[in-house]
Amino acid sequence: MLRQQTPGHCLVYSMTSKPLNIYLDYAAATPLDKTVAAAMEPYLTHHFYNPSATYDAARQVQKYLNIARSHVAHWLGSRPSEVVFTAGGTEANNLAIHGIMRQFPKSNMLISSIEHESVRVPASRYDAREVNVQPDGRLDLNDLRQKIDDKTVLISIMYANNEIGTVQPIREVAKIIKEVRKLRGLSGLPLYFHSDACQAANYLDLHADRLGVDLLSLNGGKIYGPKQTGVLYVKAGIKLLPLIDGGGQERGLRSGTENVAGIIGLATALTLVQTDRREEGERLRKLQQQFLASLTEALPTAIVNGSIKYRLPNNLHFTLPGTDNERLLIQLDEAGIQAAAGSACSASDQTPSHVLRAIGLSDTDAQSSLRLTMGRHTTLAQLEQVILSLQKLTAKS
Amino acid sequence: MLRQQTPGHCLVYSMTSKPLNIYLDYAAATPLDKTVAAAMEPYLTHHFYNPSATYDAARQVQKYLNIARSHVAHWLGSRPSEVVFTAGGTEANNLAIHGIMRQFPKSNMLISSIEHESVRVPASRYDAREVNVQPDGRLDLNDLRQKIDDKTVLISIMYANNEIGTVQPIREVAKIIKEVRKLRGLSGLPLYFHSDACQAANYLDLHADRLGVDLLSLNGGKIYGPKQTGVLYVKAGIKLLPLIDGGGQERGLRSGTENVAGIIGLATALTLVQTDRREEGERLRKLQQQFLASLTEALPTAIVNGSIKYRLPNNLHFTLPGTDNERLLIQLDEAGIQAAAGSACSASDQTPSHVLRAIGLSDTDAQSSLRLTMGRHTTLAQLEQVILSLQKLTAKS
Repeated sequence: MLRQQTPGHCLVYSMTSKPLNIYLDYAAATPLDKTVAAAMEPYLTHHFYNPSATYDAARQVQKYLNIARSHVAHWLGSRPSEVVFTAGGTEANNLAIHGIMRQFPKSNMLISSIEHESVRVPASRYDAREVNVQPDGRLDLNDLRQKIDDKTVLISIMYANNEIGTVQPIREVAKIIKEVRKLRGLSGLPLYFHSDACQAANYLDLHADRLGVDLLSLNGGKIYGPKQTGVLYVKAGIKLLPLIDGGGQERGLRSGTENVAGIIGLATALTLVQTDRREEGERLRKLQQQFLASLTEALPTAIVNGSIKYRLPNNLHFTLPGTDNERLLIQLDEAGIQAAAGSACSASDQTPSHVLRAIGLSDTDAQSSLRLTMGRHTTLAQLEQVILSLQKLTAKS
Repeated sequence: MLRQQTPGHCLVYSMTSKPLNIYLDYAAATPLDKTVAAAMEPYLTHHFYNPSATYDAARQVQKYLNIARSHVAHWLGSRPSEVVFTAGGTEANNLAIHGIMRQFPKSNMLISSIEHESVRVPASRYDAREVNVQPDGRLDLNDLRQKIDDKTVLISIMYANNEIGTVQPIREVAKIIKEVRKLRGLSGLPLYFHSDACQAANYLDLHADRLGVDLLSLNGGKIYGPKQTGVLYVKAGIKLLPLIDGGGQERGLRSGTENVAGIIGLATALTLVQTDRREEGERLRKLQQQFLASLTEALPTAIVNGSIKYRLPNNLHFTLPGTDNERLLIQLDEAGIQAAAGSACSASDQTPSHVLRAIGLSDTDAQSSLRLTMGRHTTLAQLEQVILSLQKLTAKS
């Protein structure tokens, strides 16, 4: 029996269906995982209690919070008490930087020249010096060594870059820092190592001791968890000054009634991505290789930016000389492809990306560059469609 | 036909049902409104895009954010650009205080002696002086006048107290501030008025100009909205320094990818409570009167704390001389009644409430006091049950 299709049916269908969407901006935002949403739901409804209240139902909420904290700690290889929940990755980066730097007024700090704005801007409030990266986006370790002086108390180097996906030699940075600490001895200033791991958490090891970090930032909104949830790992014994004071939640480091559902969601999301990170990383690595091979075949003038070897498996960043990325993004959007030119934060202003400048791109080349970031729902068929669209659009222009 | 009830059915029923819960801690946390949850849902799922991205789907999210902003502005009688979304009420209070005070290093600020910790603690980083309250919890306006000096740049007086529910004479404070500004003229320091309206938003007018405030804090988690969402109203022309820097969201005052679902939820929740505030306020006012009448009849030694006249309609705060509130709260919880001794934030530490001290209670009386805060699901039958329980429990002890 055939189901009758009335015109009304068709109309409804065409209204609710969207044009084919190929989402390639996972570095800007990830869709909420369904398991995460299901884990959050009871804490938005039944378990709405304030975890600091004293009755049993509230104590249970506190217990679930602590379970979430221990899950996050598991992936960091840390103690639960070293996990501070924040309202987002930006807040975590700010807490790390201000939390240390406000204690040492005459000190300085080092950041890489390609950090995210949430590190660059708070760092700019202090004597912050930039460590160069090489043309492939990797940190220049010699430049790092030379720029550390007696007054350096904080080094903040991102784990993986949000624009070009370059993975930094975190363990090597940690080694250098360890050497400096030894030389300084007990009489010198402390030297702390912070890493912004917001883009790395989907694919890389987060074990704090293996990495050698003292402070590490995570962002729920980049790992298929809820937006404006985050974590700052704070190694035991490190004193931080809080940004937000009050009721003393999160061991005094982040006051305010806890975002219970958000924390449960973040912990669930982290567990899911860290459990699958190798498998999903390999899947995307293959897609990445296939895309880049097809791209350079279809568009021989295309230049891939940033290290191929030391790169997040979901990142595709390239220059199409002679094109205008603003125009191209609009045309791609019309073709159902959602992509970016750089970080979403700086999408609205017109200044060329500091990351692309740091790796030596001219402003013209920067304005001819695209960032496609893949994720769970990205398929080879989608990428083939993107290549076709790029071919068509650049042939036209 | 009768539906057969197997033992299994009964078992399941008894497992999923809870003992009768009478929740009387709405000042600590409110359950999420179902309409709010429904409004948030699409922004947790379909509309997950980063509002700063450039493709159409992301611009739509940005558009919905702006609609939410205009809804909040409506209730504040403000322009949308005067609404800053924060991650909670505590953050909003911190942003107001640090945002102003960091600009004026040699100035001072005034707070009432009964402010919430999220005002008290950030204020304590500066030269902050306390203005007394009268024994009924209302601000002593003469003391306020006397304590304002040439170096006072910020006055932070809560709209309604979180423990005893006292509503402060905000409009009168605003008048005094206006007079001081006139006297200072253009050559003097500015003088700003901040009010923490987190507990007031369910029942009172929030129109900023009518109140005469420059800065006003709201908390989503106290108005049947999501936790760790908040608003700081910032009157046009007032310069604030941000707490959290980075991508420049919220006009540079709160960086980090916006909590889109949270903001939509907060705006929806605010609209719901402000639309119903008079009706719901009257309903609770009646319950409040009935409870307090029954209480003093059933337990003649009971003393009600704080002004009866200038009081949030949902607040019941009283001393039962000779009782121990810690023990009583446990017993009430066992009887299915969830209540508090003070603010949830300070529930865990053992120091007597600064609010109760400020209105002249002895530490012994403070430790014999209970806070019951009513809300949407509170009924007369529940309150009668509470009176019966209190009678039984205090007779025993």
